[in-house]
Amino acid sequence: MKVIRTVNVAVVGATGAVGTMMLRVLEERRFPVGELTALASRRSRGRRVRFGGRSVRVRELTRDAFDGVDLALFSAGAGCSLAFAPEAARRGALVVDNSSAFRLEPGVPLVVPEVNPEAASRHRGIIANPNCSTIIMVVALEPLHRAAGLRRVVVSTYQSVSGAGARAIQQLWRESGRLAGRWRAYAPGRGVEQACEKLRAAGASGGPLPHRIACNVIPQIDVMRPDGYTKEEFKMRAESRKIMGLPSLRLSATCVRVPVYLAHSEAVTAEFARPITPARARAILRRSPGVVVMDEPGEGRYPMPINLGGRDAVGVGRIRQDPDDPRILHFWAVGDNVRKGAATNAVQIAELLVGASA
Amino acid sequence: MKVIRTVNVAVVGATGAVGTMMLRVLEERRFPVGELTALASRRSRGRRVRFGGRSVRVRELTRDAFDGVDLALFSAGAGCSLAFAPEAARRGALVVDNSSAFRLEPGVPLVVPEVNPEAASRHRGIIANPNCSTIIMVVALEPLHRAAGLRRVVVSTYQSVSGAGARAIQQLWRESGRLAGRWRAYAPGRGVEQACEKLRAAGASGGPLPHRIACNVIPQIDVMRPDGYTKEEFKMRAESRKIMGLPSLRLSATCVRVPVYLAHSEAVTAEFARPITPARARAILRRSPGVVVMDEPGEGRYPMPINLGGRDAVGVGRIRQDPDDPRILHFWAVGDNVRKGAATNAVQIAELLVGASA
Repeated sequence: MKVIRTVNVAVVGATGAVGTMMLRVLEERRFPVGELTALASRRSRGRRVRFGGRSVRVRELTRDAFDGVDLALFSAGAGCSLAFAPEAARRGALVVDNSSAFRLEPGVPLVVPEVNPEAASRHRGIIANPNCSTIIMVVALEPLHRAAGLRRVVVSTYQSVSGAGARAIQQLWRESGRLAGRWRAYAPGRGVEQACEKLRAAGASGGPLPHRIACNVIPQIDVMRPDGYTKEEFKMRAESRKIMGLPSLRLSATCVRVPVYLAHSEAVTAEFARPITPARARAILRRSPGVVVMDEPGEGRYPMPINLGGRDAVGVGRIRQDPDDPRILHFWAVGDNVRKGAATNAVQIAELLVGASA
Repeated sequence: MKVIRTVNVAVVGATGAVGTMMLRVLEERRFPVGELTALASRRSRGRRVRFGGRSVRVRELTRDAFDGVDLALFSAGAGCSLAFAPEAARRGALVVDNSSAFRLEPGVPLVVPEVNPEAASRHRGIIANPNCSTIIMVVALEPLHRAAGLRRVVVSTYQSVSGAGARAIQQLWRESGRLAGRWRAYAPGRGVEQACEKLRAAGASGGPLPHRIACNVIPQIDVMRPDGYTKEEFKMRAESRKIMGLPSLRLSATCVRVPVYLAHSEAVTAEFARPITPARARAILRRSPGVVVMDEPGEGRYPMPINLGGRDAVGVGRIRQDPDDPRILHFWAVGDNVRKGAATNAVQIAELLVGASA
């Protein structure tokens, strides 16, 4: 029996929105970190990050940086993962990769610990961390599936700008500041139409999102595919099928960016093989790991970005039966896309393996 | 043959977000207004509104105010309509009522001119103007229904604050201003998590919406019903059935408020009796009144609040076939809730009757 006392951890993309949170989650969960290596592209070389009360210098990402690393948490985009993750694994590190690079590879487990923890042990050096919207949805769907047999899903998302990284956060920040200045020029009640015309004229602000996001919603996340779906929408379908072990699950998503900084919201329609009442669904979800039921809508209690941001749980509420079909439930789920949708889930995956080797 | 040369028009709620727009739309469409009477509650008495290049004094709403009025456009809430619309009709005015008061009354036509203009002529003094989200959706659904037979709808909305009136616009304006001040205290990239914690602590701002709306989305519009749906969600179901003449249409809605000032967006899933391709749907919608097809997503062209606000057309895009069922289409529709969702539709209804009497 090999007892792992400490784990040498590398965080790749350590200065990004998710990488920064990975460092924080490793601390919060008292992950047994031995040596901590913060890696980033040449652009961030020399910057410093905080970990364990110390200031850690960010090193440039190279192949040799993985020597002596036991666990490499990647969150620097698919290109970076394709270039460096196999090399990190070859040098003996377990890779947990937050990019889309390997998620649908047959030999790579795609893991949400509350859903398919057993898949993690079948890794060959790389485990993929799913898309943020997918994680938030399947944490809520899996317990209901076990009870009633999931047949079909229709989901519409309300995704925050932090899902597009630190530069998208800056885009909304910058646009909001410009609009705030403009709004001050109008007395409230002077006519939203007139004000909005000025806002329209202001145009985009040159950020990473495809359009202006302040006072707007954008029905496109990631690139378009030839079939009319975006890559984000395709991910929700393909990844949910793999994680839940339902290769022919019927699922269609509409993924939309909204002017919110943190936390993704999702309106989910789930059709089951057997009828399931909202009361039973609530009872099941209340005892499910990673879920918090917030479902007293008459008292204004339901999940929202302002009360789920900064938390690891997925909030589920507005659970109701379809008025025409008792096999269909509609519900509303919200989760912190940077935490449970990315950093926390990655660290939870690592914990599964550390636990398994003890 | 009676020739109506001019129509004496009263606008009830003339100082509100919709009432102001009604005055503007009457001008834009050169509605043959004779005498214009601007009415509002005692609170707004003495304020002035602009119409036809003149400044019109707002009068207090009383029963006698409807003497000599041919057309009364109501937009001052259901309570006001219940109290005054029947009286206005009794005194000979045709009432077009934007509130929910009479929409589902059997003897009251509920009209979207692009969908069921023929219903308008069956009025007994009052015609109801539908809910804003419903109008935007049925303008897009009706032509597709005629081609392929609508069976079932699932819709998730992204509704702007102007749908809750001028005070909700002020709430978002005020909250955004407060947040802009806070954001300036942070350097971009200093961590969205840290910043959002401060925003959460800031709390609500005492506006009409049930929670803070800046940096948030709220999955509740109007009051909750015992069946777990909100009144807004119920309206979309019941009103669509009545307008489209499909009393047993299966429809479930999730209505959500987003931090946008103007224009409602909707992710619509529509199941038809017969298969329908996206190409055919686009061709049908291109020749449909009140619709503008914006569907080149690869070039970033789809409807959004920033490009539909201020317009009367409903924008439709992201039209795609369900990957598992050729009878299901998914699409994205956006419309100006104050114009086509309220003021423009009301004036269009009045035009049907003015035309009919000529």
